[in-house]
Amino acid sequence: MRRKLYHGACYYPELWDEETIQQDIDIMREVGVNVVRIGEFAWSVMEPEEGKIDVSFFKEIITRLYDNGIETIMCTPTPTPPIWLSHGRPERMHVNEKREVMGHGSRQHACTNNPYFRKKAAIITTSIAKELGQLRGLIGWQLDNEFKCHVAECMCETCLHLWHDWLRNRYGVIERLNEAWGTNVWSETYQTFEQVPQPGPAPFLHHASLSTMYQLFSMEMIASFADEQAKIIRCYSDAPITHNGSVMFSVDNERMFRNLDFASYDTYASQENASAFLLNCDLWRNLKQGCPFWILETSPSYAASLESSAFPHADGYLQAEAVSSYALGSGGFCYWLWRQQRSGSEISHGSVLSAWGEPTVGYQNVLAVERARKDIEQVILSTVPVQAEAAMTYSDRAKAFIKTEPHRGLQHRTLVTHFYERILNTGIHRDLIPEGVPLDGYRLLFTPFVPYLSSDFIQKASAFAEAGGIWIVGPLTGGRSSEHTIHTDCGLGELEKTAGIKTLFTFPMNEVANTGKAFGITAPLGLWSAVFDTENGNTLGTVESGPAAGHAFLTERKHGKGKIVMLGSLPSGKKGDAMLEALVRHYAAEAAISVRSDVTPGTIVAPRKGDNGLVWVIVNMDGKGGSVTLPEAGTDLLTNRSEKAGRLAVGPHEYRVIQFDNHS
Amino acid sequence: MRRKLYHGACYYPELWDEETIQQDIDIMREVGVNVVRIGEFAWSVMEPEEGKIDVSFFKEIITRLYDNGIETIMCTPTPTPPIWLSHGRPERMHVNEKREVMGHGSRQHACTNNPYFRKKAAIITTSIAKELGQLRGLIGWQLDNEFKCHVAECMCETCLHLWHDWLRNRYGVIERLNEAWGTNVWSETYQTFEQVPQPGPAPFLHHASLSTMYQLFSMEMIASFADEQAKIIRCYSDAPITHNGSVMFSVDNERMFRNLDFASYDTYASQENASAFLLNCDLWRNLKQGCPFWILETSPSYAASLESSAFPHADGYLQAEAVSSYALGSGGFCYWLWRQQRSGSEISHGSVLSAWGEPTVGYQNVLAVERARKDIEQVILSTVPVQAEAAMTYSDRAKAFIKTEPHRGLQHRTLVTHFYERILNTGIHRDLIPEGVPLDGYRLLFTPFVPYLSSDFIQKASAFAEAGGIWIVGPLTGGRSSEHTIHTDCGLGELEKTAGIKTLFTFPMNEVANTGKAFGITAPLGLWSAVFDTENGNTLGTVESGPAAGHAFLTERKHGKGKIVMLGSLPSGKKGDAMLEALVRHYAAEAAISVRSDVTPGTIVAPRKGDNGLVWVIVNMDGKGGSVTLPEAGTDLLTNRSEKAGRLAVGPHEYRVIQFDNHS
Amino acid sequence: MRRKLYHGACYYPELWDEETIQQDIDIMREVGVNVVRIGEFAWSVMEPEEGKIDVSFFKEIITRLYDNGIETIMCTPTPTPPIWLSHGRPERMHVNEKREVMGHGSRQHACTNNPYFRKKAAIITTSIAKELGQLRGLIGWQLDNEFKCHVAECMCETCLHLWHDWLRNRYGVIERLNEAWGTNVWSETYQTFEQVPQPGPAPFLHHASLSTMYQLFSMEMIASFADEQAKIIRCYSDAPITHNGSVMFSVDNERMFRNLDFASYDTYASQENASAFLLNCDLWRNLKQGCPFWILETSPSYAASLESSAFPHADGYLQAEAVSSYALGSGGFCYWLWRQQRSGSEISHGSVLSAWGEPTVGYQNVLAVERARKDIEQVILSTVPVQAEAAMTYSDRAKAFIKTEPHRGLQHRTLVTHFYERILNTGIHRDLIPEGVPLDGYRLLFTPFVPYLSSDFIQKASAFAEAGGIWIVGPLTGGRSSEHTIHTDCGLGELEKTAGIKTLFTFPMNEVANTGKAFGITAPLGLWSAVFDTENGNTLGTVESGPAAGHAFLTERKHGKGKIVMLGSLPSGKKGDAMLEALVRHYAAEAAISVRSDVTPGTIVAPRKGDNGLVWVIVNMDGKGGSVTLPEAGTDLLTNRSEKAGRLAVGPHEYRVIQFDNHS
Repeated sequence: MRRKLYHGACYYPELWDEETIQQDIDIMREVGVNVVRIGEFAWSVMEPEEGKIDVSFFKEIITRLYDNGIETIMCTPTPTPPIWLSHGRPERMHVNEKREVMGHGSRQHACTNNPYFRKKAAIITTSIAKELGQLRGLIGWQLDNEFKCHVAECMCETCLHLWHDWLRNRYGVIERLNEAWGTNVWSETYQTFEQVPQPGPAPFLHHASLSTMYQLFSMEMIASFADEQAKIIRCYSDAPITHNGSVMFSVDNERMFRNLDFASYDTYASQENASAFLLNCDLWRNLKQGCPFWILETSPSYAASLESSAFPHADGYLQAEAVSSYALGSGGFCYWLWRQQRSGSEISHGSVLSAWGEPTVGYQNVLAVERARKDIEQVILSTVPVQAEAAMTYSDRAKAFIKTEPHRGLQHRTLVTHFYERILNTGIHRDLIPEGVPLDGYRLLFTPFVPYLSSDFIQKASAFAEAGGIWIVGPLTGGRSSEHTIHTDCGLGELEKTAGIKTLFTFPMNEVANTGKAFGITAPLGLWSAVFDTENGNTLGTVESGPAAGHAFLTERKHGKGKIVMLGSLPSGKKGDAMLEALVRHYAAEAAISVRSDVTPGTIVAPRKGDNGLVWVIVNMDGKGGSVTLPEAGTDLLTNRSEKAGRLAVGPHEYRVIQFDNHS
Repeated sequence: MRRKLYHGACYYPELWDEETIQQDIDIMREVGVNVVRIGEFAWSVMEPEEGKIDVSFFKEIITRLYDNGIETIMCTPTPTPPIWLSHGRPERMHVNEKREVMGHGSRQHACTNNPYFRKKAAIITTSIAKELGQLRGLIGWQLDNEFKCHVAECMCETCLHLWHDWLRNRYGVIERLNEAWGTNVWSETYQTFEQVPQPGPAPFLHHASLSTMYQLFSMEMIASFADEQAKIIRCYSDAPITHNGSVMFSVDNERMFRNLDFASYDTYASQENASAFLLNCDLWRNLKQGCPFWILETSPSYAASLESSAFPHADGYLQAEAVSSYALGSGGFCYWLWRQQRSGSEISHGSVLSAWGEPTVGYQNVLAVERARKDIEQVILSTVPVQAEAAMTYSDRAKAFIKTEPHRGLQHRTLVTHFYERILNTGIHRDLIPEGVPLDGYRLLFTPFVPYLSSDFIQKASAFAEAGGIWIVGPLTGGRSSEHTIHTDCGLGELEKTAGIKTLFTFPMNEVANTGKAFGITAPLGLWSAVFDTENGNTLGTVESGPAAGHAFLTERKHGKGKIVMLGSLPSGKKGDAMLEALVRHYAAEAAISVRSDVTPGTIVAPRKGDNGLVWVIVNMDGKGGSVTLPEAGTDLLTNRSEKAGRLAVGPHEYRVIQFDNHS
Repeated sequence: MRRKLYHGACYYPELWDEETIQQDIDIMREVGVNVVRIGEFAWSVMEPEEGKIDVSFFKEIITRLYDNGIETIMCTPTPTPPIWLSHGRPERMHVNEKREVMGHGSRQHACTNNPYFRKKAAIITTSIAKELGQLRGLIGWQLDNEFKCHVAECMCETCLHLWHDWLRNRYGVIERLNEAWGTNVWSETYQTFEQVPQPGPAPFLHHASLSTMYQLFSMEMIASFADEQAKIIRCYSDAPITHNGSVMFSVDNERMFRNLDFASYDTYASQENASAFLLNCDLWRNLKQGCPFWILETSPSYAASLESSAFPHADGYLQAEAVSSYALGSGGFCYWLWRQQRSGSEISHGSVLSAWGEPTVGYQNVLAVERARKDIEQVILSTVPVQAEAAMTYSDRAKAFIKTEPHRGLQHRTLVTHFYERILNTGIHRDLIPEGVPLDGYRLLFTPFVPYLSSDFIQKASAFAEAGGIWIVGPLTGGRSSEHTIHTDCGLGELEKTAGIKTLFTFPMNEVANTGKAFGITAPLGLWSAVFDTENGNTLGTVESGPAAGHAFLTERKHGKGKIVMLGSLPSGKKGDAMLEALVRHYAAEAAISVRSDVTPGTIVAPRKGDNGLVWVIVNMDGKGGSVTLPEAGTDLLTNRSEKAGRLAVGPHEYRVIQFDNHS
């Protein structure tokens, strides 16, 4: 798949007549679309009656597209089981947390753990893989579509039994579950696994362990479905397999992608939310390291459904998205969708062509993307992203813990995005890495918002620090056990022992009563916080007001050749942002981070490396233009003109590609 | 019913003892109440045990009231089926969109499509019609009460089967439904009609066609119940039949009133919302043209229930309501309710008398209404409303489309009221007309917020324009097919072809990023918008900023002797209001609209016509006073003094009745 | 229990190992904790398998604690029935108002009226009472925990049958119910008691009588459960019985505590809400008069659950709470909880010790409480609270009426707290008294927000006024009958006849349109209001604007030697507060209230009386310090220094204890 830089669209030829399909292909060629993703909602076209499967339409379309220079990512159609699977079969349907049984309609209405669903899904996927798996135009597979985008944990009877199996497997005997969860609180002790309920309607909150474990169970189940489907495909096809994921859904992406071949995701962030767009690039590049990720869906203009609607991107932003994502590691940039839906629930969603075959409001921007793609294709294909020296831990399992325990409406994604922005704003190149990623090559590691840190992770990070790395832990990290209980040996359990800094107590800080000072800045402190004894380390941040005044909220301690830095609270507001950015800069300097620039906020530098050395792709994201200092002279690869060392300006949504002369 | 101008109240004699009834009648006579509406919640009094029907109480009360000069509108009591119909019978109950089965209590708890309900409703109505149908005091019938005021579409099993029948009737074969709806999106293709679900709980949005068609089905069903009931009454009574409708409920009023005899409605708008009050007058006058409409319910002071409460009208406003509605075509003005309820869910609702028989806070205002009624009765009875030259299309079916597809929380009523206000503010007399009303006599037609325009309607409006009318279409009009899908030939389908102006693309504008200029005014643009190619017409409004800058949002094109004007977007904010009002004035001038005045906003002119020529009833609604220019000299019919041409002032809540001297 | 002033904590030794228990006891001794409450969630520990009961652990722990100087309040464990009671038994579970059947988990998931639950509850309580009832360390019993804190009325089948029994018992024949409720409105007439529904899902509001009576039924049922449990305990133990109640739950505390021995409650008010803390002291002192009440739960720092979190008290506030509550009549001040939960739903809740055995953020404040407790123990034990001369009626049944009929989102607790603050701010010592408390000794009685006033209450208050008292009634008082219907003889029924002031009409006032003047202050008026005829009394407050302008909203009339004052509306905003405080001061002066001071707002004076005469405990609650005039010289009992008459300052959160020299 590294033969080219892909620019594509999601396409539903099964919905249109022959004439329209021909028009589509013609315009795709004009536009420069070189890949389409097809088939993910087409189960009823493939198997209109139960057992009568015919996927020849897709076989022909893939071939025909290929003949027109357009390659295909083929999907399994499991998000939308046909009416014959669901009609009169409430036991096959998804049941939500209020115990409402879903009816047919919309998507994801069936329980993906239902054995009949699994059986029929295996059969349709087998047929597709067998029939299409060897087609030359087929360059990859997508499983299903946005697993768990509309639903979270299912509460059906099938899931109840699987839940008991999962628990039995995890705990062996019920006594171990009772002990691990601390079920003796509120007399919740179970006598058998069969008694453990699903966290459905109850007068008040469920036990934290029950809520979190049910989420982890559900995440494992959906991943096991993906495993099962991928295994089928691999019997018939060598094309790599992916799934269009998201950090927003109830999925453990690290686990989900373990058995898939490349990482992909969908993103519909608006320009105001450009940092969320970049966060995704910096994360998904690391979900399957060494392999380009794909953006399988993004809107050419705006996202919308019958009941919601965003607004079109400003002109130029789409190109900035495409270039920045290619530069940050993307191998494909695809729109949802090629041609506006004629019917259904998303008829108003932004597309490349309208339902009547005319250019939409986003069309010119799509053309601009294609021009840019051609511009940069060679340099992207001949280089790879430079690994960052600074990493930030990302965990979807932490997301589950925070969903169980949001304290005061906390949202994992909001917290993570905000912290990520602090690093982004300093101009330091960064990787967002799942917990399982090795720490080789990093000098600085941030681990905020991970309530439960595994022993494996702590040992890995400890070794990283011992070897000279700086590990900055917190806030909201380490205070919960694997079972979502409180440690009883000390506040932060194994983390605390490893860090060697005593946690005095934890409590909710609020931005009115609590302030703290660090790096010369006084800022409000918020979030569930830990304060530390400073005896065994250096205090870098001290609580100045509120109940814990005088105690430390930010400490550091030598750890082998490196350091462990404990951040117990979240500086908030503008002052808090400044304090966090000062923290990042302070330790970046100490760690001698070199993969960085002084790029102005709103513009990014994506460093890449090839046979000719270092290349910077510089992109203005905010439409206001920006600048960066080139540390040495280089060549503009798009114009072939040389650029002196020093300040380089980039215009609104402009991109520049600079090859440094002397950099290896 | 044209013998007098009715002033009445809703009355529940079945709830009170003999002594209280006598007191009520005595005070009604004092106050001047000459009509009551009775019986709509009295089923259990009429049929306390299943099959034991006795309506003699109502026979006697109607006679007794008549003997006291008070006529009666008798209701069928079907909104509140007795306990013997519902107890232990969940299958007879209404089921809401969450599939909650209603219990007994409140109102509208039974499914009006349930065959047993229909049977018992037919029996009770037969009894009432037979017993009371010939009474001299009986001047009209009201069916049920506020159909669908508390409930929307029912999801019970009965409705499921009727739904399948309705679909079978509409589409014949399932393939036609699949094609019409485009069910191949998301694999929703049905194999049989029996598989088509009701739009109950689902993980995400239902298909647009399913949602909209289920609403249209439900609207037809409730109308068919009304048809059935009316047919029974007509076997035994010649008195005209109505229903107290509302634009707020899930009813297609145009369809509902097709088989009824006169139009009536309930309104509880507060003074701040006086334009909603006037909108109703201008609409319901046209639901059964040529026949006075009735306001069957309005509060003498304030609406309230156990859980909600408005505040009393300012003194004088009730009289302004009464006079303006009589002048705009009302034949009756009735309060809900005469005597405060002693018990139930509406014990705190405003009334004429308190539960203990004393005047309420609204009482003096009721007396003022009666004085005004007497004042104007003669002139109202000897004249009829002048037909407006400007009309605005009103569609409850459009309401269903917008409920399915609210884009960003759009509400049909809010949109329509706001647009209506723009016309109202210009002083142009206006009709709000259902889609089926002929366009004879109009010069200007506005058709905003009708996503689906029928071919019949387009042809009628096209003929209207060809003959010299100006048809101003949009915003949000014409972009959806009859099945709630997107056109595939061009953006606005048949409308676009008829108008001859090409729609370039559609997209959501927002008030921050998009502005447009027309009539010298620059205003924000919002709403789901269409922009136009200007090649074949004149551009009157151009987008000035945002993604479609430079394109037209307002165009006109000659169409026969007239014009079709396309309004693609909604100017918003104060500037937007000014732009829309400029648009109205511009085309009113072009169309040479003469039924208009320069009345100040907050005051209205209701033009009427009789043997002696033109009469203006001028009413100040906002309590601040106002003025209008009399185009020629006239006579004040209330004082018999002459008024010169020129500026005429009206005081707070004052009304004036001017007969013009030379106007035919 | 008057041997000492108790300072304690809720403790869950069943959750911890032996070593931790020993640590807990050691630290309790250090801290000075002299009482613990245990056992309320321990059913599964006591009866891990159905029928296998063993409470020896608790027997041992009570003895062991006692040996360490710590006494125990033992609980019945009925809020958390074990899994063997609920698993596979939906018919035993609580069903909420949406008819959702609760699953196992959380608390209060079983229906407390289920006969099987009742049977098993009786068995476990019998075992506990028998085994532990005679232990020396056991000083009291707590029934269950916070009845109805998570659930309101249950809608299960058991409750349906009990409901019918309750109705049959109340009304005898169905005709009486129909008449009393006025069910003929909306055809809701019932033919048999079996037909009367529970107020579950319905299209619109249920009948007021149905809603209110179902609440009263539910309140009686939970009290009957308490009666049943208390009766069992009394067979085996002489220790007094209480329950930890709250004004926030769906319980009639006056009824609940009728058959219990002393009053207790839980409170988690924050410092900003200190008046709610004081309100509770002034109320619960009077629920079982003559007997110290207990605060069985309050946080040493902050309340929190998985999904919510308050913030820690400012340092010093906990001590102010403890001292003020002891001074206002508390015999015990207990924390929830001693040691942070390791698991469950409340792992983040503030505690004395952390889950790992270290001091928490609240620890120092707990030590401060203990120092204060020792400081004041002698004076508290040798004195009793002085009865106030001013009382305010408190009714949980009124709470039910207002829940049924909130008008515009009214909340009983908010209304009552706000009115109470007006009295508090004047420095008048006050009692909040349930309706059944005799009025002996009072001179001033306020009765706001009691929609239904019983005939007994009216007669008692009338006699109170006749004997010279001043009864200030309203707003929102007396306008509803016992059945939650409207009076039909006059607006306020028996109250109106007793007061001799005619209510003209009632209606909703709003703060924009309505103002009134009294005591020289003009203020907005709000709330559902009554206006009065002034013929038979003095007008003290006149409506100045809005529909009732010119009528009285505040009147007084001589009643025997005293007065009845009718307050028809609620003055609102800052001016309204000032008007209400002027009203309180005016009548306090007229009634010659002497148990009062001029203490500054934010500081309180708790007057107590002993053999040595009058003692004032003065406590600053708001952390800003304050002052009060000592009317005569006294002695500071904490320092033994004399204090001159005149101004006495108290520092932030400081407390002073002054024994007056000459006061008897």
